[in-house]
Amino acid sequence: MSRRTKIYEGKAKILYEGPEPGTLIQYFKDDATAFNAEKKGTINGKGVINNRISEHVFTRLAHIGIPTHFIRRLNMREQLIRQVDIIPLEVVLRNVAAGSISKRLGIEEGEPLPHTLIEYYYKDDALGDPLVAEEHIACFNWASNEEMHDISSMAIRINDFLCGMFAAIDIRLVDFKLEFGRLYDGDYSRVILADEISPDGCRLWDMTTGEKLDKDRFRRDLGGEEEAYREVARRLGLLNGEDNSPGEVFDLSHARSRLRGPPPLKK
Amino acid sequence: MSRRTKIYEGKAKILYEGPEPGTLIQYFKDDATAFNAEKKGTINGKGVINNRISEHVFTRLAHIGIPTHFIRRLNMREQLIRQVDIIPLEVVLRNVAAGSISKRLGIEEGEPLPHTLIEYYYKDDALGDPLVAEEHIACFNWASNEEMHDISSMAIRINDFLCGMFAAIDIRLVDFKLEFGRLYDGDYSRVILADEISPDGCRLWDMTTGEKLDKDRFRRDLGGEEEAYREVARRLGLLNGEDNSPGEVFDLSHARSRLRGPPPLKK
Repeated sequence: MSRRTKIYEGKAKILYEGPEPGTLIQYFKDDATAFNAEKKGTINGKGVINNRISEHVFTRLAHIGIPTHFIRRLNMREQLIRQVDIIPLEVVLRNVAAGSISKRLGIEEGEPLPHTLIEYYYKDDALGDPLVAEEHIACFNWASNEEMHDISSMAIRINDFLCGMFAAIDIRLVDFKLEFGRLYDGDYSRVILADEISPDGCRLWDMTTGEKLDKDRFRRDLGGEEEAYREVARRLGLLNGEDNSPGEVFDLSHARSRLRGPPPLKK
Repeated sequence: MSRRTKIYEGKAKILYEGPEPGTLIQYFKDDATAFNAEKKGTINGKGVINNRISEHVFTRLAHIGIPTHFIRRLNMREQLIRQVDIIPLEVVLRNVAAGSISKRLGIEEGEPLPHTLIEYYYKDDALGDPLVAEEHIACFNWASNEEMHDISSMAIRINDFLCGMFAAIDIRLVDFKLEFGRLYDGDYSRVILADEISPDGCRLWDMTTGEKLDKDRFRRDLGGEEEAYREVARRLGLLNGEDNSPGEVFDLSHARSRLRGPPPLKK
C-alpha cells in the first residue's frame, strides 16, 4: 500500500493509482477544512462515514440512470473509481438560503428559495473558488455547451432524488455541491458524476429540530461533528456493522430506518 | 428650478420630476465615487462632459434601432429622459480583462478575453453589487426570461457599435456598464436602455499609448481625470463650443476627429 502512486491529494481525500488503467482509488481522510482551508481540523471517523455515505448515494443515483465514477467500495476508507478529467467547476444546488448566498445576496439563512438555484464556482483554491456564470464558463471554455447541458440536467435530477431520499429520513437538503468529470472513450467523452456526496459537501438540517447534521458544525464551532455525521449514516441505514459488504447496503430497509423505531437488526 | 421635485439622487446623477408625465430630468453631477463609494471626490466639469457624451452615444444607438430613455439634452448638465422602472442589474460587457475580473479570475489586466463576456451584477449598494448568474436573476425574478433575452441581445449590439465608434477615434473599449429599464405602455412593458454611457462607466484605453481615458484615472489616483474625459469628448467631436444644439452633433465629421489632424473648425 505504501508503494502505491499518489495521483492527487486534496483537502479531504487522496487519489491513488488504481489496479487497472482508467481506475483510481479514492481514499477518505478524517481531515476537515473550511473557509478555503483557513480553518483546519479533524473529524474522527469522518472518512469512514463519508466513504459509506458516498457509496450509498452514488449507487442509488446509478439506479436512476445517473452515470457516476463509483465502481465499488474496497474497504473502510477506500473506494475504486473510474479515472476522469475533472471539470473545474463546483456545481452547487440550493433549496434553502444558507452560507455564502445568504451573505452575498442578503437573504436570511433558512429562507426557502423561490425555486431551486444552481450555481457554478470556478475550482481554484488560490482564487477562493469564485462564483461564475455560464458566460464565464463558455468564455474560458471550462466546459462545452453540451457538457453544461448534461451537467445541469443531471444536477437537477440528483437534487430531486436526494431531496426525496433525505426527506424520507426527516432531513432537509438545504444545499449541496457536486463535481463532474469527463470519461474518455477514444476521442469521445461523456460527463459523469465524480468526487463524493457526503455531509462534507451538503447542508443537512433535521426537519423537526432544525439541528445541523453537516460540516457547518465544524465550520461554526458547534461541536458534535462526529455524532452528526454518524447520525446521517445511521438514518440512511448504514451503521449496522462497519464491515458490511457493499451488497448488504441494499438489503437494509429504507422504510425501517425512516421510522427511527427499533434499530436495524444485525444479520 | 429649486422647486422641482427630486425623485432620486445617485452617486453621479440626480433625477428630477420632468415637465410631462412619464418624463424625468437627469442632472449630471461632477461627483465621482469608486469602490462602492468608499472613495469620493470631484472631477471638475465631468457632469457637463458626460451629459454630452451620453447624449451623443444614446442618439447614435437610437439610429441603429436600440430603444433608449433619452429624449433630448436640455442644457449643459441636464437631459430629458423617459421615466422607466430600472431593472436592478448592472450589465457589464468585457472585451479585455481589467478591474474586478482580473482580480476575481486571476487574468492579467490587458489580456484580451477569448470572446466578449457579458456579466450581470445585482444593483445593491449595501451588498456591494454582487456578481450574479442568470439563474439568480430567474430565481429572484429580477427580470423575466424574455427581458433577459432582450437585454443580452441589445448589450451585444451596443458593444459592437461602441467598439466600432471608439476604434474610429483610436480608443479601445475595454469594458463598460449598461443599465436597462422597463417602459410601461398600459399593461405592456418593454425594455429600453437607460442610465448613461460615459467614461464613468467605461474603460477606454488609447490604442496607441495604452493611456487610460476613464474613471480609472480617479480610482487609481493617476491624475488628469478632467483632461481624459475632455479628450474622449474631443475625439468624439463634441468640444467645438459647449453650447452646441443636439442637432449640431451630427454635423461634425466623425472621420475628421478620427484623424486628429486640425481641430474641428468653429462654425
